[in-house]
Amino acid sequence: MNTRIAASALALMGSTASAQDLASTLPEAVSKVAPALEAYSTDALFGTVWNADSLSLRDRALVTFAAKVTRHEVDDLAAYTALALDAGVTAPELSEAITHLAFYTGWGNATAAAVAMAPVYEDRGIASADLPGANPDLLPLNEETEAARQTMVQGNFGETSQGVVDYTEAYLFRNLWLRPDLAPRDRSMITVAALIAAGQPEQMTFHLNRAMDNGLTQDEAGGMLAHLAFYAGWPLVFSALPVAKDVFASRSK
Amino acid sequence: MNTRIAASALALMGSTASAQDLASTLPEAVSKVAPALEAYSTDALFGTVWNADSLSLRDRALVTFAAKVTRHEVDDLAAYTALALDAGVTAPELSEAITHLAFYTGWGNATAAAVAMAPVYEDRGIASADLPGANPDLLPLNEETEAARQTMVQGNFGETSQGVVDYTEAYLFRNLWLRPDLAPRDRSMITVAALIAAGQPEQMTFHLNRAMDNGLTQDEAGGMLAHLAFYAGWPLVFSALPVAKDVFASRSK
Amino acid sequence: MNTRIAASALALMGSTASAQDLASTLPEAVSKVAPALEAYSTDALFGTVWNADSLSLRDRALVTFAAKVTRHEVDDLAAYTALALDAGVTAPELSEAITHLAFYTGWGNATAAAVAMAPVYEDRGIASADLPGANPDLLPLNEETEAARQTMVQGNFGETSQGVVDYTEAYLFRNLWLRPDLAPRDRSMITVAALIAAGQPEQMTFHLNRAMDNGLTQDEAGGMLAHLAFYAGWPLVFSALPVAKDVFASRSK
Repeated sequence: MNTRIAASALALMGSTASAQDLASTLPEAVSKVAPALEAYSTDALFGTVWNADSLSLRDRALVTFAAKVTRHEVDDLAAYTALALDAGVTAPELSEAITHLAFYTGWGNATAAAVAMAPVYEDRGIASADLPGANPDLLPLNEETEAARQTMVQGNFGETSQGVVDYTEAYLFRNLWLRPDLAPRDRSMITVAALIAAGQPEQMTFHLNRAMDNGLTQDEAGGMLAHLAFYAGWPLVFSALPVAKDVFASRSK
Repeated sequence: MNTRIAASALALMGSTASAQDLASTLPEAVSKVAPALEAYSTDALFGTVWNADSLSLRDRALVTFAAKVTRHEVDDLAAYTALALDAGVTAPELSEAITHLAFYTGWGNATAAAVAMAPVYEDRGIASADLPGANPDLLPLNEETEAARQTMVQGNFGETSQGVVDYTEAYLFRNLWLRPDLAPRDRSMITVAALIAAGQPEQMTFHLNRAMDNGLTQDEAGGMLAHLAFYAGWPLVFSALPVAKDVFASRSK
Repeated sequence: MNTRIAASALALMGSTASAQDLASTLPEAVSKVAPALEAYSTDALFGTVWNADSLSLRDRALVTFAAKVTRHEVDDLAAYTALALDAGVTAPELSEAITHLAFYTGWGNATAAAVAMAPVYEDRGIASADLPGANPDLLPLNEETEAARQTMVQGNFGETSQGVVDYTEAYLFRNLWLRPDLAPRDRSMITVAALIAAGQPEQMTFHLNRAMDNGLTQDEAGGMLAHLAFYAGWPLVFSALPVAKDVFASRSK
C-alpha cells in the first residue's frame, strides 16, 4: 500500500484474540476477486486500524459486531462473534448486545444475528442457562433524570403516538437500560455505533452525551468513528463527525 | 419482564392468525443465544404490541411485511408472508404490495421478497393466474390533483432529470397507484411504513397526508409508529415522530 | 402496462450484453408471486429505462452493480456481475469498484460482494493475476487541491477524530482515488450512485461536483437518477434531486 501510515505487525495484545481471528473475518473470495481489497484489509484495516491506541481491542470487536448486526450483515457474523468472544467480550454481554440492538436497530436484525451466532455458542458450549434471563435484578434508576426525560417525550409526542411514549418508558428506560449484564457504558457505545452504522446522526446527540456520561471517553469516541469508517463506510462517518464535534464542544464548556 | 405494561394473553382475535403464527416468526436460535430477547418477543412484542387497539391485526401484519421487505430481511420473510395471509391480507394484496414496494424501496428488495414468498404461495396453491396481471382496469384518476402534482414536479426537477419526472408520472401516478387490487389506503400505509423503515422521514409529509386522505386514521398512524419501533428500531421512529406530529397538526387546523 | 411511455424492443446495442442478460437478473419466482412486477420489469425497466439515451449500457450496468453492492443485495449479484462484464465493464474495473465501495459503503458490503462474484470470475477464467494488485503506479495527484481538502478537513474534524482525518488522506485521497484501473470519472460515478442508494444526499454535493469535474455530464447524472429510481426506490431519488439541482445550478453560473 502506498500509504503514509505504516502497517504495523499484527500484534494484537491484551487478549487472546489473534491475527488469525481478524484474518478469519475475510472471506477467501476476496483474494480471488479483488487482491487490492485483500491487501487493504490485511495492512490498513487489520494491521493499522485494529491496533490503534484510541480504542481497546475488546471495544473494537464489540463495536464492529454492533455495526454488522445493525447493517444485517449476517453472512459472516459467526466469525465476528468468535472474534468478539476471543477479544474479551463475554457471551452474556454479546447476548445482551443483540437484545439491546433489537430495540435500537430493529427486531429482524437481532433475530437474524441470533441465527448466525447460535453455532458459535454451541461450539463453545455456551448454553441458555449461562446467559441473562428475562428478569434479572435491575440496576438502580435515577428517577429524577428519567422523570425529566419522560416528561419531555410525553409533552413532545404523547398526542402523536402514546404507544411509542409508553413503550419507550416501560421497555427501554425502566427496563432494558437497567439490565445488569452489559455495562451502561457498553450499551451506550453500541447504541452510538448503531446510529452511525445506520446513518442516523440526527439521533446521536442524546446517545453520545449519554455514552460520555456513562464513561466513554472523547478519545474512544473519536477512535470509534475512525474504526467505523471502514465498517460502515466513509460517508456515514463524515455525517456523524459534525454531531460528535458539537457534543464534544458542548461538554468542554 | 419488569414492565408497567402487563403482557396480555396471546389472544389475537378477528382473524385466523394465532399466537402460533406470531411465534413462528421467532427463530429457535433466539432462545439459545438470547433468552431475554425471546422473553421480550413473547411478552412485549407478541403479547402486548400486536394486541394493541390502535391498529388491526391485519394492518399490523401488512405493515410488518412491508417493513421487512424494505429492510431486505428476507431470511424469515416466509413466516411473515404466512402470518399476513392468515391475518387477512389476501394473496393478490401481498402480490400488489411487493410490486408497489419495488418502486418505493427498490427493485432488489421486491424481487428478493418474491423468492422468499414463492414457497408459501406454492404450498397454499396460489397460482399466477390467481394474482393481478399487468393490465387491470385502473381506478379513476383525479386529473386535477395529478395535474397539480405533475406541474410542481416538472417545475422543480424537469431540468435536473426529465427521466425521473416522466417515469414518476407514467409508471407511478397514472398507473401503479391506480391498480385496483390493493386499496389506496393500504398502498399509502405501506408507503409510509417503508419510509419509516428506510429512515426517510424527509419524504413522509406528502405520503402521510396522502395516507390520511386515503382513509388512514391518526390513531392508526400512531399505532403504526409504535409497532414499527420494534421492527425498524426506536431511533427511526423517533426521527419520524416530529414529521407525523406536524402532519397531524396541519390537518387539525 | 397502461403507460404513456411505450416499451421499446429489448434492443441493447453497442456491446454484447443482451436482453437475455437483463432477463437473467429477474428471479423466476417473480412471475409466480407477482406477475405485474414481472411485466413492469420486462417492459418498463428492461425495455424502456435500460435503453434510454441519457446513460450508456455500460454505465447503467456499473451503476446498478454499485447500487446493489451498497444495499448488500448479494443474493442475485452474480447475475449483475455477469451483466456488467457483458456490458463492457472489465474484470479489473469491477474488482476496483468493490475495493472502492469497501471504503465508501463499508467493508462488509464489499467482502460479501466478492463472495457473490467469485463464481462468475472463476467461470470466466479470470484469475487473481489478471486483476489489479496492491501497489500499482498511481495516477498523478493535484497536490494543491489535495492540500486544500486536507487543510479543511483537518481544521473541521482534527480535534474530533484525528484517525478519520489521517486515514482519509492516507488511504483515500493519496491512494485509492489514484489507483489507475478504474477511471476517476467511474470512481466518482459509483461513489455518487452509492450515496444515492444509501440515502446519503447530505454527502452528495462534494462527490457530484467531483464527478462532473472528472467528466460525468449533467445528462448522465440525470439519467443515473432516473435509473436508480428503480434500483434504490423512488424516495431516495427524490431526496437526491434537490442536491443534484443545486449542484447543476452552481456549475452553470
